[in-house]
Amino acid sequence: MGIVLGDNRYGKAEIRMVHVARSGAHELADLNVSVALAGDLAGTHLRGDNSNVLPTDTQKNTVYAFAAERGVGEIEDFALRLARHFVSSQPAIARAWVAIEEYPWRRLGPHSFARDGGSVRTARAVVDGDSEWVLSGVRELVLMNTTNSEFHGYVVDRYTTLPPTTDRILATEVSAAWRHGGTTVDFGQSYVDAVARMTDAFVGTYSLALQQTLYAMGGAVLADAGIVEARLVLPNKHHFLVDTAPFGLDNPAAVYHADDRPYGRIEGTVTREDTVDAPLAWDGYAL
Amino acid sequence: MGIVLGDNRYGKAEIRMVHVARSGAHELADLNVSVALAGDLAGTHLRGDNSNVLPTDTQKNTVYAFAAERGVGEIEDFALRLARHFVSSQPAIARAWVAIEEYPWRRLGPHSFARDGGSVRTARAVVDGDSEWVLSGVRELVLMNTTNSEFHGYVVDRYTTLPPTTDRILATEVSAAWRHGGTTVDFGQSYVDAVARMTDAFVGTYSLALQQTLYAMGGAVLADAGIVEARLVLPNKHHFLVDTAPFGLDNPAAVYHADDRPYGRIEGTVTREDTVDAPLAWDGYAL
Amino acid sequence: MGIVLGDNRYGKAEIRMVHVARSGAHELADLNVSVALAGDLAGTHLRGDNSNVLPTDTQKNTVYAFAAERGVGEIEDFALRLARHFVSSQPAIARAWVAIEEYPWRRLGPHSFARDGGSVRTARAVVDGDSEWVLSGVRELVLMNTTNSEFHGYVVDRYTTLPPTTDRILATEVSAAWRHGGTTVDFGQSYVDAVARMTDAFVGTYSLALQQTLYAMGGAVLADAGIVEARLVLPNKHHFLVDTAPFGLDNPAAVYHADDRPYGRIEGTVTREDTVDAPLAWDGYAL
Amino acid sequence: MGIVLGDNRYGKAEIRMVHVARSGAHELADLNVSVALAGDLAGTHLRGDNSNVLPTDTQKNTVYAFAAERGVGEIEDFALRLARHFVSSQPAIARAWVAIEEYPWRRLGPHSFARDGGSVRTARAVVDGDSEWVLSGVRELVLMNTTNSEFHGYVVDRYTTLPPTTDRILATEVSAAWRHGGTTVDFGQSYVDAVARMTDAFVGTYSLALQQTLYAMGGAVLADAGIVEARLVLPNKHHFLVDTAPFGLDNPAAVYHADDRPYGRIEGTVTREDTVDAPLAWDGYAL
Repeated sequence: MGIVLGDNRYGKAEIRMVHVARSGAHELADLNVSVALAGDLAGTHLRGDNSNVLPTDTQKNTVYAFAAERGVGEIEDFALRLARHFVSSQPAIARAWVAIEEYPWRRLGPHSFARDGGSVRTARAVVDGDSEWVLSGVRELVLMNTTNSEFHGYVVDRYTTLPPTTDRILATEVSAAWRHGGTTVDFGQSYVDAVARMTDAFVGTYSLALQQTLYAMGGAVLADAGIVEARLVLPNKHHFLVDTAPFGLDNPAAVYHADDRPYGRIEGTVTREDTVDAPLAWDGYAL
Repeated sequence: MGIVLGDNRYGKAEIRMVHVARSGAHELADLNVSVALAGDLAGTHLRGDNSNVLPTDTQKNTVYAFAAERGVGEIEDFALRLARHFVSSQPAIARAWVAIEEYPWRRLGPHSFARDGGSVRTARAVVDGDSEWVLSGVRELVLMNTTNSEFHGYVVDRYTTLPPTTDRILATEVSAAWRHGGTTVDFGQSYVDAVARMTDAFVGTYSLALQQTLYAMGGAVLADAGIVEARLVLPNKHHFLVDTAPFGLDNPAAVYHADDRPYGRIEGTVTREDTVDAPLAWDGYAL
Repeated sequence: MGIVLGDNRYGKAEIRMVHVARSGAHELADLNVSVALAGDLAGTHLRGDNSNVLPTDTQKNTVYAFAAERGVGEIEDFALRLARHFVSSQPAIARAWVAIEEYPWRRLGPHSFARDGGSVRTARAVVDGDSEWVLSGVRELVLMNTTNSEFHGYVVDRYTTLPPTTDRILATEVSAAWRHGGTTVDFGQSYVDAVARMTDAFVGTYSLALQQTLYAMGGAVLADAGIVEARLVLPNKHHFLVDTAPFGLDNPAAVYHADDRPYGRIEGTVTREDTVDAPLAWDGYAL
Repeated sequence: MGIVLGDNRYGKAEIRMVHVARSGAHELADLNVSVALAGDLAGTHLRGDNSNVLPTDTQKNTVYAFAAERGVGEIEDFALRLARHFVSSQPAIARAWVAIEEYPWRRLGPHSFARDGGSVRTARAVVDGDSEWVLSGVRELVLMNTTNSEFHGYVVDRYTTLPPTTDRILATEVSAAWRHGGTTVDFGQSYVDAVARMTDAFVGTYSLALQQTLYAMGGAVLADAGIVEARLVLPNKHHFLVDTAPFGLDNPAAVYHADDRPYGRIEGTVTREDTVDAPLAWDGYAL
């Protein structure tokens, strides 16, 4: 029974590039770019024949060169330009995934900036022959409602000890990504709108389960008619009310222990009814 | 055009459990257990109706209770027992993924131990109705060959600056997982053998490309007739020879800078020819 | 030649407490509290005699109880209350260090918040018998000037390869702490002012060396007459201009590689001329 | 009231160098080197005058060049050579601290290695004019006794809830460093011996408090007559017995939850009676 090479790809990961545009007040793009390529690569696996291999070092150079030649713009557009280049210029390369993280900075002056923690903007462009997909997303968006969250009515079995509650803290760190229906989009505005709507949905949902909040947030992303699918991973960051009765003190929803592990982990997808799946777009994508 | 709930699951992640078996010299199992469940969960997403939801807190309790009742054993077996329990005991739950990391300890005495860094053993059991899959794996296995690695004969284009080399350091941090053909296996022995063969393949392959080494390592895992598929992610941890000529010094493959980022990232799958794909087994698995 | 016990202390570290004040719009305090106590503790070290030991578990409870009883307020005040309590209530405890990190949140609604990355506020109160000190500080404040930074005129020796430059990116992640002259201060306002002045100094300094910027930032902190000493650690986060000449492209200060390691590390103290050193206040403090 | 520059220093941190010695079976040294220099550096702080500044880039080059010229040897010796060089060759530099971490690798073949997790060896050489000190140390040495640990007899106050115990898990992650009485030492053998004796002391101490274990471990380090002082930081990594009574199950010291935070933190110094303090040797050293 033979052994065969299955799916494979390779590329340069985590190219940390900063681009400064200097016409007028400086504009900053602080990026982490990762490339992955697939195609006719059996030779390098089976025999170490690299004649179809574009070195990852060259991929890195290409990222720098593209930024030097035409600037960056929106990260979705930059990722698309790169992905198209690798597929169109390399006969052996059939598919390219280009993923970019963008770190936000707040302006302090014409050439001065402070890192805005908060959240990271993400994008991924995938080109497979003539097919193209674009994902946008956000990571490390930490949200908390200090009330308007309940949890009860769940299954009870031999191992149940959790008491039902009608008032708890709901806190999560949003990892989300969404797929656009096309590739010609004002991605900057679309991103700002999607994050705002998701955040509003978190704030505005009186929550009976984090799943309910997730579905509301996913639906909010799809309020943009150009977006066809949203995937979210929401850890339930537990805050436990401290029992202060042993000290003769009351604790009316005031003092909590913020626990690290374990945490709940809620994953869900919200799509348009008629959307065609795009497994290649999401292949290996870790939210 | 309606908006619908797509794939979803939920569970407790990163339950950090230590189990001590005390008959004779103590035996230690230091685990990180994560559970994910899927099934008829539309109610909680759409209406906050939790009547089908087994709370993640109860899942955590179940992990502890199973260890208290029957001990742990091999992590693949423990994961299977848990996954089967959730699917069989919960009418609304159709699928369960139970993932476990085991941290290795070295014995110092009858009840004394030192953490053995090096690598982490992983397992995942997936139960979908009557179908079952078991994955085993390893993470953080860092390997280096200080010679017997070349890289040349690759594509050259406008962006190429990398010179070919006939002697370089090859270093990687292995993340690998493999799928067993069945669920009744001596998983402990199988794991030890797989890691040993993978390591031997890394050491023994005169490498013209990290892809060639990956394929050899995957094939080595499949030397076990009970394993049907292996997936590997191998970062190429670059070591750059330092140019000491400006100091009037020779550097004959002696002094290297170990760079953090960017790094190459090589991903590949090696399977038996006749293996049937198991997408559910790997669903959302991040190597 | 005898062996003796030297300096020692112990305590509970990283108590992750969230406090919600619910009169009107909710107010959030998200804290990480660490306690260290010293005193007549030879018995526990030499003989395991714990009669002078206040358990770290009790220290944790005390932190929660104090928050439940009187709320948190400014973290410097909260740290002082705790440190005084341990020294005054425990006959064997002569000294207490209470360190607090506060994570910033941005208000989204009356009971909704988003984590504001950016920077972490820190405080430390130290009580030694009748002596008391308060430190305030900031961590993870990442700043960048994309120009107005030069570096030249330095020592040249056999190992020099760095070319002088009259235009470079200057980027750092500020870790700073400063000592107040007293303990009765509007610490909230003082913190906001100190960070604003430090940031202004970074932005406003045309820099010939990161040391020069550090001194300007330390001086800016001391513009507050109530602050007597400031310590700063400033990593020089290197951004290297990419050489795009091999691709036939110009790179006029536009495309940079942001490197992880190594980095420069500049440490400095700025004090008032007449300030008396306070080694106990800083003992073991890692900027 | 004037503002003045206080203590300051600067240098290159985290130079990640790998050295391969190729005579016979290859020998690997995998190091992380950090340099800090102090001296007549007021000019660069006050005026941006860099005429006394040896750039951190040159410090990095020096580290590489020293390794290329004479190899590495024991990290204490390598640190000393570097520290002496900076002080003796730079008229403006009065003091140098050179800190090195060495990552352990296990041999797999004549030119093949696997990273040995476990623990990191550390060293620091400090030169101040004619005075010299050498520290050795270890980090990330994680140890556990599953029994032979009690905790009781402690202070009880209003905030006490912890029950006394006569059988608990004792687990810690050792950070330790020790000062040698001289600079001409077989540092390799000394390190192996110190870690072995410390580990034996952990294993062999029936512990009534982690402080008691710390003192035994420190004393064990000082069994080497050439070592004059040892400092240890021992987090108490809590393992909480899970209450399985609600599930109708017994848990006789078998199933524990390994908690992340908070943790106890025990710090202590053990010295020879007649040892002279060496504050410069330890200045800014974060265990």
